[in-house]
Amino acid sequence: MNRDINNLTKENITIVETEYFTFGSGLILSNGEKLSPVTIAYETYGTLNSEKSNAILINHALSGSAHAAGYHSINDTNPGWWDLHIGPGKAFDTNIYFIICSNVIGGCSGSTGPSSINPATGKHYGPDFPMVTISDMVNAQYELIKHLGIKKLLSVAGGSMGGMQALQWTLSYPEMVNSCIAIATSASLSAQGIAFNEVGRQAIFNDPSWNGGRYYDYENPRAGLSLARMIGHITYLSEKHMHEKFGRKFQDSGVRDKNLSSEYMVESYLKHQGVKFVERFDANSYIYITRAIDHFDIKEDHGGSLISSFENVTANYLIISFTTDWLYPSDNAKDIVKALRVNGKNVNYTDIVTDNGHDAFLLPNDIMGKNISNFLKNEFKKSIN
Amino acid sequence: MNRDINNLTKENITIVETEYFTFGSGLILSNGEKLSPVTIAYETYGTLNSEKSNAILINHALSGSAHAAGYHSINDTNPGWWDLHIGPGKAFDTNIYFIICSNVIGGCSGSTGPSSINPATGKHYGPDFPMVTISDMVNAQYELIKHLGIKKLLSVAGGSMGGMQALQWTLSYPEMVNSCIAIATSASLSAQGIAFNEVGRQAIFNDPSWNGGRYYDYENPRAGLSLARMIGHITYLSEKHMHEKFGRKFQDSGVRDKNLSSEYMVESYLKHQGVKFVERFDANSYIYITRAIDHFDIKEDHGGSLISSFENVTANYLIISFTTDWLYPSDNAKDIVKALRVNGKNVNYTDIVTDNGHDAFLLPNDIMGKNISNFLKNEFKKSIN
Repeated sequence: MNRDINNLTKENITIVETEYFTFGSGLILSNGEKLSPVTIAYETYGTLNSEKSNAILINHALSGSAHAAGYHSINDTNPGWWDLHIGPGKAFDTNIYFIICSNVIGGCSGSTGPSSINPATGKHYGPDFPMVTISDMVNAQYELIKHLGIKKLLSVAGGSMGGMQALQWTLSYPEMVNSCIAIATSASLSAQGIAFNEVGRQAIFNDPSWNGGRYYDYENPRAGLSLARMIGHITYLSEKHMHEKFGRKFQDSGVRDKNLSSEYMVESYLKHQGVKFVERFDANSYIYITRAIDHFDIKEDHGGSLISSFENVTANYLIISFTTDWLYPSDNAKDIVKALRVNGKNVNYTDIVTDNGHDAFLLPNDIMGKNISNFLKNEFKKSIN
Repeated sequence: MNRDINNLTKENITIVETEYFTFGSGLILSNGEKLSPVTIAYETYGTLNSEKSNAILINHALSGSAHAAGYHSINDTNPGWWDLHIGPGKAFDTNIYFIICSNVIGGCSGSTGPSSINPATGKHYGPDFPMVTISDMVNAQYELIKHLGIKKLLSVAGGSMGGMQALQWTLSYPEMVNSCIAIATSASLSAQGIAFNEVGRQAIFNDPSWNGGRYYDYENPRAGLSLARMIGHITYLSEKHMHEKFGRKFQDSGVRDKNLSSEYMVESYLKHQGVKFVERFDANSYIYITRAIDHFDIKEDHGGSLISSFENVTANYLIISFTTDWLYPSDNAKDIVKALRVNGKNVNYTDIVTDNGHDAFLLPNDIMGKNISNFLKNEFKKSIN
């Protein structure tokens, strides 16, 4: 959603800045290894009230960053990744709430990840970066929330991998979360989802510049990472959306000769997505984060039962899925809803009818906006009574 | 479906041999270029009757070959790709019918394709091979059928790209086909299907051994072709089938530590499929054939209307789709059925309930078998009356 630059005035845009919190104490990760120091890049929007009771943590998906809303400068043409839904009067209303979004550890947008410098060697971690899990990402966020002096979050929210983090927060720190908004997500990824992540990783491994993940002093594995993104992007769109947006149209409308090199519009679109992606993302982070998504499994972490997994949570939940999301199908959300309800937990669930597939959580969607807005207002009212 | 080698006797298996038909006159292709000479690899099963009225042409899919049934030797453990459905007493009953299967031009299993020697240079064609279309493949088969002295085929049959060829036969040579069996196919590929073909091609192009398609004197682009196959294979299976077959199980059942290198069963399976594939397939053929599939578009070839496309066909049709096939969804088949019925053509249609996805046409399926068997018996009876 680019702004019309001609209409830019300093008055109608929010300029935000990424901040950094570093804790030298580090983290003990799920696999027992220690990561230290840990830096977390984060942004905040709105104002923390004096009771510190209006804080909402937003968690990003695979390719997101701490920059969820606003613009980084007056000349910036790309707002944050969830700017549609975060801001004054929007679903995450910055007139009411204090919104925090941080880059996950393992990422490449300011938080400690494989492209960071390993203090033990003075060089980029690369493949020496330890495996991080969704729980580890949440544990790092916990340090940030403590640092900000917040005792209890009004809500944790996110879509896709962001929804996994939101769910994990309610399991790891039940006493610290009032409510959870988990969108287009699952308690674990399907075999098909793992398969798609794996072919994306293989695309990177096949790139001669990959060099076992030690490419920082040389050329980045651009072609491989771009292809991984192209593959991923197919899974974010529904077949129907692709049909309506591209159909069988050629990129060059004059092309009628069907030769090897004639390019369909859908191909050109995917290539563009791939090329754009490598400008802002690190191949090692792609490997680590997709693996963290694969490994996320609430049921397995709690003895094999999704129902007993949610026995001790105390948050209220808003679960949202999209009818054409085939990467995180509605049935995944329904499994979570069922497990919560069997435990007598408070759950709102909506399966939103849309053609937009998995990407729907990033796009304009009135029903999603209203659901989030109403849920938050209700939670906020309850929390101050 | 490998045989139990210990049970092998010469009596209970059919040993078949691939034959070759070369015509120096060549073919004028859809794009106006001439391909000459043309060799077609083919196999036959059963006996052509004296009236030559029992011949059925089987068309293979993307990765198939002329070897549709039987075994190549007494020690051969891999039967032809449709052996489950071709043989004595099977759906394509070789006690009754004379079955022909040929490798498509552009392929790499004996018919003229990019890995063939270009007579103009004495070297492999590689990227100098002309673009071939599904129509061109059918025109080459037409030369073979003429060569075999057959005036009219009892049926043309195939699944996936084989179904496209079967449909094209009824459009290109209506006077030569009594009936058509088109399974798990479409009058054109969806935008999503084109997208998946494209990421497969990009995987090959990214392989440093690709060398613009001129790799025959050097190393084959094995990693790229293997990855293309892995991507393709995901689209051949349904999510449900993957869930039931692999779920979230690790390949090494002892593995519980979730590290970067822990391998899920679904990953291991896909890698195995990729490695097996590069042993028998040529990367250039993968490029050319997927492009032929992308470009196939009955509607566009006939002025933009699928209904008027089928105005002049004379064949009777059996159309089969599978409920979990998301690469060639049932709706694609229904569009064909509707267009035929509007034209008053004779169509049998079955949407078979299965978890097996697109691959269902290659797997045991009683309903498919009985539908084919009954349809053919009826067509054969009508043709001899």
